[in-house]
Amino acid sequence: MVSQAVTPQSVDFSRWYNEIVYKADLAAQSPVRGSIIIKPYGYEIWDGLKNALDRRFKATGHQNAYFPLFIPESYLRREAEHVEGFSPELAVVTHAGGKQLEEPLVVRPTSETIIGEAFSEWIQSYRDLPLLINQWANVVRWELRTRPFLRTSEFLWQEGHTAHATEADAEAETLQMLDIYADVAINEAAIPVIKGQKSNIERFAGALRTYTIEAMMRDKRALQSATSHNLGQNFAKAFNIQYLDENNEQKYCWTTSWGFSTRMVGAVVMAHGDDIGLRLPPRLAPIQVVIVPIFRSDDERGPVMAAASSLKAALADAGIRVHLDDRDGVRPGFKFNDWEMRGVPVRVEIGPKDVENEVVVLARRDLPGRDGKQTVGQAGLTTVVSSLLDDIQANLLRQAAEFRDSNIHHVRNYDELRQVIEAGDWAEGWWCGSDDDERRLKDETGATIRCFPLDQPGGEGPCLMSGKPAQRIALFARAY
Amino acid sequence: MVSQAVTPQSVDFSRWYNEIVYKADLAAQSPVRGSIIIKPYGYEIWDGLKNALDRRFKATGHQNAYFPLFIPESYLRREAEHVEGFSPELAVVTHAGGKQLEEPLVVRPTSETIIGEAFSEWIQSYRDLPLLINQWANVVRWELRTRPFLRTSEFLWQEGHTAHATEADAEAETLQMLDIYADVAINEAAIPVIKGQKSNIERFAGALRTYTIEAMMRDKRALQSATSHNLGQNFAKAFNIQYLDENNEQKYCWTTSWGFSTRMVGAVVMAHGDDIGLRLPPRLAPIQVVIVPIFRSDDERGPVMAAASSLKAALADAGIRVHLDDRDGVRPGFKFNDWEMRGVPVRVEIGPKDVENEVVVLARRDLPGRDGKQTVGQAGLTTVVSSLLDDIQANLLRQAAEFRDSNIHHVRNYDELRQVIEAGDWAEGWWCGSDDDERRLKDETGATIRCFPLDQPGGEGPCLMSGKPAQRIALFARAY
Repeated sequence: MVSQAVTPQSVDFSRWYNEIVYKADLAAQSPVRGSIIIKPYGYEIWDGLKNALDRRFKATGHQNAYFPLFIPESYLRREAEHVEGFSPELAVVTHAGGKQLEEPLVVRPTSETIIGEAFSEWIQSYRDLPLLINQWANVVRWELRTRPFLRTSEFLWQEGHTAHATEADAEAETLQMLDIYADVAINEAAIPVIKGQKSNIERFAGALRTYTIEAMMRDKRALQSATSHNLGQNFAKAFNIQYLDENNEQKYCWTTSWGFSTRMVGAVVMAHGDDIGLRLPPRLAPIQVVIVPIFRSDDERGPVMAAASSLKAALADAGIRVHLDDRDGVRPGFKFNDWEMRGVPVRVEIGPKDVENEVVVLARRDLPGRDGKQTVGQAGLTTVVSSLLDDIQANLLRQAAEFRDSNIHHVRNYDELRQVIEAGDWAEGWWCGSDDDERRLKDETGATIRCFPLDQPGGEGPCLMSGKPAQRIALFARAY
Repeated sequence: MVSQAVTPQSVDFSRWYNEIVYKADLAAQSPVRGSIIIKPYGYEIWDGLKNALDRRFKATGHQNAYFPLFIPESYLRREAEHVEGFSPELAVVTHAGGKQLEEPLVVRPTSETIIGEAFSEWIQSYRDLPLLINQWANVVRWELRTRPFLRTSEFLWQEGHTAHATEADAEAETLQMLDIYADVAINEAAIPVIKGQKSNIERFAGALRTYTIEAMMRDKRALQSATSHNLGQNFAKAFNIQYLDENNEQKYCWTTSWGFSTRMVGAVVMAHGDDIGLRLPPRLAPIQVVIVPIFRSDDERGPVMAAASSLKAALADAGIRVHLDDRDGVRPGFKFNDWEMRGVPVRVEIGPKDVENEVVVLARRDLPGRDGKQTVGQAGLTTVVSSLLDDIQANLLRQAAEFRDSNIHHVRNYDELRQVIEAGDWAEGWWCGSDDDERRLKDETGATIRCFPLDQPGGEGPCLMSGKPAQRIALFARAY
């Protein structure tokens, strides 16, 4: 077998990413432009995120439903900003059942419009509110430049759609879902995202306010990891979503939508990976522990494999996702490298001497070399491994938070901002610039306002662009 | 509120079905021809089936993956029978990203072809076999006549795709998955399906052998509920899926595919429902127990609601899916009817006297009237309800099996078959007719060979059509 070495991040991060996605078997290339095949190792990471989200959605009163893949073209036109935002990205079905369709059908780029139409029929009175619906689905946005997981023509996601009686209720929902996204990113994916509000230019087509969680990748680029939108009454007016209030008056609803996608699998890769390959947070790792048996002869093989099998059973019984690498004809050293590349958090090595001494050697993926190794007794292995997995989860989060914090710099003026961005870092500074100022900044530096963080210092300061008094700090970075 | 009465089954079964699907809130109509919106109450039934299947797939070594929605048109043409089988049903994307595509993309009607192409790249040697992949996805087949859940232009399903070294391995896999389908149908959906093999005419386009589970609905029509296909080497040859065997020789793989869809939600409705509405098997019911509080004054309201809430908490803690119907301004009698229509297995009634006596009244959905009612103490309610749910699950299965068995008749010749079919029943009889005989039978009686049941009496008998000695019994019925 050939070595699985990847291009180091420091040499070419983008190449590193593309190589590792395929070599680690997260995805495969597909014959359809801009689409990938999500292979089992990548799909299980998505499934972990999905389950973590779904539990939280249900605990906050949301229900799953499923709406059609196809949307009549006319629906998208009903909300002016919305159709403008999506037009260039649409895939259109013009023929079906052997005939040309009277009205072309758009493959959903998102479902605001078709769900808006449904809500207008389902909602009659204040008793029907809030209506809290989520959908797990595939969507299609025909992208020019694609990158596995981060930007693909088809991707998997969930889209939440809710309707409320008041603006305050809609805003509370929008922020509640942002909190859930941040909770899953931080506590499951070990990615210390920053919650914030998007600028006018960056907000969702048709939304009043868009909130985001922004993550820093290992190349210091920003990744918008999920968004939550307060749609105001824009879609309610476009789709006539009205309710009879307690005084028997017709009112328009306030609606929200929020989405989290397979893009997050890419975030996990780029937020934690190192030159050797993936480093998966234990809570999402399809394989949390790999056991590598070590023997030189058939005499040694028997007892080593027997011990390895019984350790595997003990770990599995404790609910740990464990794999025993019993491949023949592959040296242990190759196996070590292979599983390190694939980001398995803990390796258990067991050889003939270890069997005799009733011990194993544990190696941590997050601490390379000697530092991450320890010899432990087989008797208490499950307990040790469980707490080791917790440690690794916490350590990945801590490392990522330290990396993030050491690469965000406060800037007082445009010159300082340019220098920080030029160095590849993130800048934060007071901002009350116009949309045109923001566009100029993007053109000149390649950076965008990632968000106005929800966590603000308070008070005011001079806008880094205009010098006028600004009330909010903005976060600037080059982004995926 | 208006009464929710539905057309009785005996008056018009088809109308009953269409009404109950919408009134019970399983689905809503959509603006897209032939597509429905699956509402939360229907989606949860699907989710229950999905989880039951997914657990079994994983326990038998299958892994989930995700393949593109779009398939290059040329892929479908590579297997001759396959493209012929699907051509009239395809939806085609001709434009995307504002341009006409060079090659149109077909919205997957099933994924044999694109997965076949992937398998040809992923499989190198016998060490890669068996390859056991499953996909949860939406598919599109442009149907002329549609019916909610049973036949829709878009539906949700899982499709398994596997590759094996030998024909025997592929056949064993095909039958194993059929067993899993039957297990879920029988033990989760309480539908006593019959496992069997499809005739040449009814088998899947491109398959060597197709197996099916067939269910009898309450109108005695058959419903093909899931299928499992041994694809032989047809797709392996069309997509060049080869492996190097242990002697270093290139061999074609043997592949299988198998699918189970949202159609099963329709089967649950039609296999158990009665004139009043749904009767949901407890294992799949989104709400297993509904608590209806009964009071006439505000004085009574307080203690009744307090007791109802604490019973709800106790049942929920025991893992029972319970709902407290606390709607104001709706009489208890209306609530009883409403939840009976929606098929909730157990109703708990609690009024002021019950609170005093520390009892509740339980009513079973499967035993209408007095017979299904009992007064039980609040103290042991959870235990009683748990075992009641098991009873109801078993009873629904028993009722459906009795109904099925009393409506299948052995026939010795074509005349007898015609009479049985004309009466709306199922016929079983010896069969070694030709494809033409089968087509004639279909034209003349409206019935098809549903399957050759796997459970055969052995020996032989005279073919009901030709009188020649036949080795197998076939099952005949009109079907959805």
